[in-house]
Amino acid sequence: MQRMEEMILTQGKVLPGGILKVGSFLNQQIDSVFLREMGEEIASLYSGSGVTKILTIESSGIAIAAAAGIVMGVPVVFAKKHRTSNVDGAIYAAPVHSFTHGIDYQAVVSTDYLTDRDTVLIVDDFLASGNALHGLVDLCGQAGARVAGMAIAIEKCFQGGGDELRAAGYRVESLAMIDSMTDTEITFRR
Amino acid sequence: MQRMEEMILTQGKVLPGGILKVGSFLNQQIDSVFLREMGEEIASLYSGSGVTKILTIESSGIAIAAAAGIVMGVPVVFAKKHRTSNVDGAIYAAPVHSFTHGIDYQAVVSTDYLTDRDTVLIVDDFLASGNALHGLVDLCGQAGARVAGMAIAIEKCFQGGGDELRAAGYRVESLAMIDSMTDTEITFRR
Repeated sequence: MQRMEEMILTQGKVLPGGILKVGSFLNQQIDSVFLREMGEEIASLYSGSGVTKILTIESSGIAIAAAAGIVMGVPVVFAKKHRTSNVDGAIYAAPVHSFTHGIDYQAVVSTDYLTDRDTVLIVDDFLASGNALHGLVDLCGQAGARVAGMAIAIEKCFQGGGDELRAAGYRVESLAMIDSMTDTEITFRR
Repeated sequence: MQRMEEMILTQGKVLPGGILKVGSFLNQQIDSVFLREMGEEIASLYSGSGVTKILTIESSGIAIAAAAGIVMGVPVVFAKKHRTSNVDGAIYAAPVHSFTHGIDYQAVVSTDYLTDRDTVLIVDDFLASGNALHGLVDLCGQAGARVAGMAIAIEKCFQGGGDELRAAGYRVESLAMIDSMTDTEITFRR
């Protein structure tokens, strides 16, 4: 998606430690016009795939998943990062390690919201090592749901998670794919 | 908003401790068609109010804020619940106590995303004691931004936060207002 690459080049900022800051349009602040375009792009990529549900994980994937859900007209489920008082009853849970925050957590979803009748599109903002996505795939597996594929705003290809998921047979669509980045240059894969 | 009341009556569930579970359409799972309607309702309530930005707090307000942002065409900013490695530079911070989770946290937003040129619509899923909203109002005050008002999916009137904010001069619009609830009956204020 050319507009995503332009937004990254004009508004993104590379921070020490290989972090790409896109807070002005994708994270802390979301450009709503662009958000709608992302939703339309994702819907277009997965049209005809029989998607019945979108699955994401709190919190930075929620807006993108909601935008895609609004265009596709399917429910959006978000996995929580730990068990809270608002999740009652039976749950599926999968362990995830976050490199960004240096912590381990459980991705948790109620068994009510993911079933063996679902065909799931997994949506997230970033794909790096792929740990969060593996956790979400694990949740789908526990529910007996089919995974139609994944839609990601920005993939950091150099961290390998996306190619590993593709090699494992999953469809992974990223709106921008970064092959390399330094504080002066960002190179995209096309 | 009549549809919100219907959704609460048909799909909501009152849990012990005065928690209203609306996970099937508003929290863990979001009904996308209804989400779009919420966005349209909020946009309609605040049309002509000069809103330049929507402010919410992670994570359960994000989808509603995104839906309203998409309809209104204004950026959505979400305050984070603690300082993470993805928020660099200067920030505004306000203390918030969460009754639901029994914890205190900081609501944090980068100074880049909230300015004295902004007229802010604050959006959240629930309004009970109003602590989170007070934190978000505090952030707007620190930035010198004007608060146009608040749009809330569900207000628990019996916890008093909404009426307190109205008494303080804020415009508070709630899509459903619950005057009382037990596990067998929910009464709405109209």
